[in-house]
Amino acid sequence: MAAGKGTRMKSQRPKVLHRLGGRALAQHVIDCAAGLSARSVVVITGHGAAQVEAGLKAPATTALRFVRQEPQLGTGHAVQQAVPVLADDGLTLVLSGDVPLTQPDTLQALIDLSAGEHLALLTLDLPDPTGYGRVVRDADGAVRAIVEHKDASEAQRAITEIYSGIMAVPTRLLRGWLARLDNRNAQAEYYLTDVVKFAVADGCAVRAHRINDAVQVAGVNSPQQLAELERAYQLRLANRFMVDGVRLADPARFDVRGELVCGQDVEIDVNCVFDGRVELGDGVRIGANCVIANARIEAGAVIHPFTHIDGEAAGVRVGAGALVGPFARLRPGADLGAEVHIGNFVEVKNSTMAAGAKANHLAYLGDATVGERVNYGAGSITANYDGANKHRTVIEADVHVGSNCVLVAPVTIGAGGTVGAGSTITKSTEPGALAVARGRQASIAGWQRPQKNKKAP
Amino acid sequence: MAAGKGTRMKSQRPKVLHRLGGRALAQHVIDCAAGLSARSVVVITGHGAAQVEAGLKAPATTALRFVRQEPQLGTGHAVQQAVPVLADDGLTLVLSGDVPLTQPDTLQALIDLSAGEHLALLTLDLPDPTGYGRVVRDADGAVRAIVEHKDASEAQRAITEIYSGIMAVPTRLLRGWLARLDNRNAQAEYYLTDVVKFAVADGCAVRAHRINDAVQVAGVNSPQQLAELERAYQLRLANRFMVDGVRLADPARFDVRGELVCGQDVEIDVNCVFDGRVELGDGVRIGANCVIANARIEAGAVIHPFTHIDGEAAGVRVGAGALVGPFARLRPGADLGAEVHIGNFVEVKNSTMAAGAKANHLAYLGDATVGERVNYGAGSITANYDGANKHRTVIEADVHVGSNCVLVAPVTIGAGGTVGAGSTITKSTEPGALAVARGRQASIAGWQRPQKNKKAP
Amino acid sequence: MAAGKGTRMKSQRPKVLHRLGGRALAQHVIDCAAGLSARSVVVITGHGAAQVEAGLKAPATTALRFVRQEPQLGTGHAVQQAVPVLADDGLTLVLSGDVPLTQPDTLQALIDLSAGEHLALLTLDLPDPTGYGRVVRDADGAVRAIVEHKDASEAQRAITEIYSGIMAVPTRLLRGWLARLDNRNAQAEYYLTDVVKFAVADGCAVRAHRINDAVQVAGVNSPQQLAELERAYQLRLANRFMVDGVRLADPARFDVRGELVCGQDVEIDVNCVFDGRVELGDGVRIGANCVIANARIEAGAVIHPFTHIDGEAAGVRVGAGALVGPFARLRPGADLGAEVHIGNFVEVKNSTMAAGAKANHLAYLGDATVGERVNYGAGSITANYDGANKHRTVIEADVHVGSNCVLVAPVTIGAGGTVGAGSTITKSTEPGALAVARGRQASIAGWQRPQKNKKAP
Repeated sequence: MAAGKGTRMKSQRPKVLHRLGGRALAQHVIDCAAGLSARSVVVITGHGAAQVEAGLKAPATTALRFVRQEPQLGTGHAVQQAVPVLADDGLTLVLSGDVPLTQPDTLQALIDLSAGEHLALLTLDLPDPTGYGRVVRDADGAVRAIVEHKDASEAQRAITEIYSGIMAVPTRLLRGWLARLDNRNAQAEYYLTDVVKFAVADGCAVRAHRINDAVQVAGVNSPQQLAELERAYQLRLANRFMVDGVRLADPARFDVRGELVCGQDVEIDVNCVFDGRVELGDGVRIGANCVIANARIEAGAVIHPFTHIDGEAAGVRVGAGALVGPFARLRPGADLGAEVHIGNFVEVKNSTMAAGAKANHLAYLGDATVGERVNYGAGSITANYDGANKHRTVIEADVHVGSNCVLVAPVTIGAGGTVGAGSTITKSTEPGALAVARGRQASIAGWQRPQKNKKAP
Repeated sequence: MAAGKGTRMKSQRPKVLHRLGGRALAQHVIDCAAGLSARSVVVITGHGAAQVEAGLKAPATTALRFVRQEPQLGTGHAVQQAVPVLADDGLTLVLSGDVPLTQPDTLQALIDLSAGEHLALLTLDLPDPTGYGRVVRDADGAVRAIVEHKDASEAQRAITEIYSGIMAVPTRLLRGWLARLDNRNAQAEYYLTDVVKFAVADGCAVRAHRINDAVQVAGVNSPQQLAELERAYQLRLANRFMVDGVRLADPARFDVRGELVCGQDVEIDVNCVFDGRVELGDGVRIGANCVIANARIEAGAVIHPFTHIDGEAAGVRVGAGALVGPFARLRPGADLGAEVHIGNFVEVKNSTMAAGAKANHLAYLGDATVGERVNYGAGSITANYDGANKHRTVIEADVHVGSNCVLVAPVTIGAGGTVGAGSTITKSTEPGALAVARGRQASIAGWQRPQKNKKAP
Repeated sequence: MAAGKGTRMKSQRPKVLHRLGGRALAQHVIDCAAGLSARSVVVITGHGAAQVEAGLKAPATTALRFVRQEPQLGTGHAVQQAVPVLADDGLTLVLSGDVPLTQPDTLQALIDLSAGEHLALLTLDLPDPTGYGRVVRDADGAVRAIVEHKDASEAQRAITEIYSGIMAVPTRLLRGWLARLDNRNAQAEYYLTDVVKFAVADGCAVRAHRINDAVQVAGVNSPQQLAELERAYQLRLANRFMVDGVRLADPARFDVRGELVCGQDVEIDVNCVFDGRVELGDGVRIGANCVIANARIEAGAVIHPFTHIDGEAAGVRVGAGALVGPFARLRPGADLGAEVHIGNFVEVKNSTMAAGAKANHLAYLGDATVGERVNYGAGSITANYDGANKHRTVIEADVHVGSNCVLVAPVTIGAGGTVGAGSTITKSTEPGALAVARGRQASIAGWQRPQKNKKAP
């Protein structure tokens, strides 16, 4: 179910597309269902349907289908839109697109409880159940009904077991029950929860999988709830990483929005953010306040504080034992070999640096191929863009580029060569050569510097 | 009341001038009182009186007066200093300069309760009331007295309702009661709370507005309490922003020290700090770890992580759809048009950049006027300061400035012109011209680089 | 005791060498014991013994000895390895190398309780004592036994007082009791806790110092527990600093990994990390997101956000009233005088800057001696490294270095001199001279910039 408007989000974005851990809320639900080997996932859209349909993607292994609910006449009405596309021999798991953190094993337990013939409800014990549908049981503890808060009697409102909105039900039975729904209630809506009444009437067992982890069934209706679940999600991830041996300086200041894969003895300092797919090899250390996305950091590399890495589609590789930062930025296509050093205020983009190459201070390397052991001087720049096209700079092995140089691409600095400080190099140089391109030093003795202008009185 | 010393702050700054959310504690109180349409706000100073008087400013709509309490002989004595300047026909609200987070509606309720003729006290239920003045009521629940902790009986110490230090009282009555205070108690001080006794004796109703939100009446006596209230204040703000639809990645890592105004669909990542007046337009996204002060960021602009913006008095504007950062710094007078790009390690100060201009890498733009679509190369600098005066650089539309250039102001680069990489430009150039100022490239084949000095054995 | 494996750490590093607040877990224990005037500290190693022995260092005042326990046959067996090196006339305090946060006064209380003749146990009241050894007392409250969880009866498991693993015992008695241990229990281990049984049998009083601060006896067995204790440790430190008057914007975002010394009226903004020895003088303000190690920041200096300072062994000094950052980096040997300004994207290493010198934008100063009031231009670099050796740059007082200059060391710029923008200076200059080394500006009118290549269709 992904048709709701989400008015309290106060956003032009449909609610189920808001992101948690970098993924749309509904995408969490879809991916979770796919992980349970669902035959297909049917998304019921409504408000912002086209946007929702464009914003979600099918998991690798499961078909994704969309049906539209227009207008929105209640949860039962929503599911009525989906049943026509479902086969009678299956089980239907009804999930909410704004409830992102249900665990697969919880849903599997619900599926098992349904056992292909029963109605299985996921329920939650909640100290303050105000506003939620209550689970009404008989004296023997069998579930008899779910009563919406608005329709509940005083006695029923005292019940603390609530229905989570999630159920597993044989599709064949669901289809029949949905056909019997009516909207004679306080909201004039078709309640999905009425199927409980029909199940009871038909003598079908209604089973409940009762949990007390509210996060698993918590929905997102406002930015506050989104932020709360974001934190719950991040802490859950942090705990998983720590169980695997990752050492986090502060689990409350750790954010993963994609897929993070860590080797042994990885240490991550405070306030780091990971996005996209990031791999950290054995012994990698990430300093405080780093933002790292779409990158592979190989064993033993050290990323100093205030480093920004984002490989986007092209990726970034940081070789084994490399040192990066502080205040370094690696952009798409930065491919650093072993023991490479990238220092402060250095930007690398779409460039290969072979083992042992260094760019330690205030430099830009773009569209460059840098050989082994090259020392790239402070303040030096590859001028890769002529205002229209990008060109490549090749700096062969063992070259020493002085400070504040410009290498105007396309250009090659031959192996073992040297570029004198302050040179703008426009022609390729021979191996072993010293290339210099700068003005002669002149001096004017006793020069008077300009004087401070007097301000008008 | 702003006369206290605040010994536990261990600071040379008077307690009420310590800042919470970027404003002095007492300023919060003054601004809150002004918001209630107070006729005037009278600040009773004592310790560090001159400093306090200089450190607080009158709200736009309300007169601010200072009276001094020297020496400090208790809360009653403090208020005695203020009554001479108060008109008899008004209501006096007694507030503490170190209690910054009382909500306006709480004070309004107190004013309403006083109704121009009663003594109205703000009271609080506190699980552990040790150290606070207790509210003693009779069998009917009417307030009979406030008893300071030091003077309280064992039975009175069991009372959990405490007096907050805040009262509303008709000025005419207050004046009379203050005249009757004495200091025959354990502290030999004049207690303001004794007015309750006089009110009771005079048959004046004593009403209490009883709350349970301790933050509203919490005082600051130590750096710990200051930090606690700072967090409470920031979380309160965070919640307000989220109610308005702002999406915060982590409400616990969000700091606003001034006035933040947000449009729709604003997203703010972790660990950002806002100061002064900051406006964020619709759809603005602020990346992790940004510090932003005194700036207007227009619709759809994206501020990447590690961006530092401070417009100070002059302000900063970031135009619609602009991209700024990571590692960018915008200083006073940076005025960026629509779709401007400012990249890593770039500083902009007192400069106008027209729509579509770009400075993507390691650059300084100071006192510059940059035209539309200009591309300002990596490592380029406007030399705006000749050691005595600042001068302006004009870069007209569609200019391409190469890498590592210096534009020595005053200078103009004509429209559509090009400045070759590595050039130091001291003379203005014609539109459409290519300007180059660099040395000719020379080469020394087979050059021997210096050898590593041997260390003395 | 530091012989455990720490399997759940999933690390190649022995458990007791994992760091908390920048120090190895066992180092905390050693330093604490040393602070109690221990005659010697004996570390019982086992797993990773050589690594542990190399990773711990003796406190200044106390001998540090290592004994090995191989194989590991229980806590009693561990202590058996240590007693041979202990003198009979002393008191033995048995501590755990993975319990880092016991307070000295807690241990002193335990020592006092032992009084040279009793067995004194440190015990803890714990709401959920599952898994811990219970303290069994008789009807009079005297301690009769410690029973391991696995061996405890149902009634004993209901006891909430647990043994912390820490005891003080006269060495003479300990030696005798250890000789009587056996391993007839569920784990087939020699339990140190059995000494309680012998003490009781021998009529030796068993006293308990009972605390309820679980942090003091919490052990580290997993990255989660390490992170929890790290946070507890940091909050404890934060509170101490605040008691001393330091103002922290957020105590939960404050990390000290070494020794931080603060003067009066120090303010530290959110998310700062301190490492090594750092001194902050009176009135120093540290902006958000700074990382500062091994440095002395003198009175009134202001460190703006995103500043990275690490003096390593050489140290860094920031003079009184200096302004540093944002985005500045000070490296070992940066020695800044009073009122020095270091601005954005500036790196200083092994350089002295005299009072009033400024390097405000995108610059590198390495191996330089900078005189008073020097203005070092944007984008300027000291080329201190010729590819083999480092050389020194001297910039005398009142020099003005223009933008994008390179000073090729060894070189001296004479006092009061000026270096023109864009100059590469290779020869020393006279005082008062203007030195320029750049190409002549030439212009090509109506120049056509390259056209964007057409992509193949």
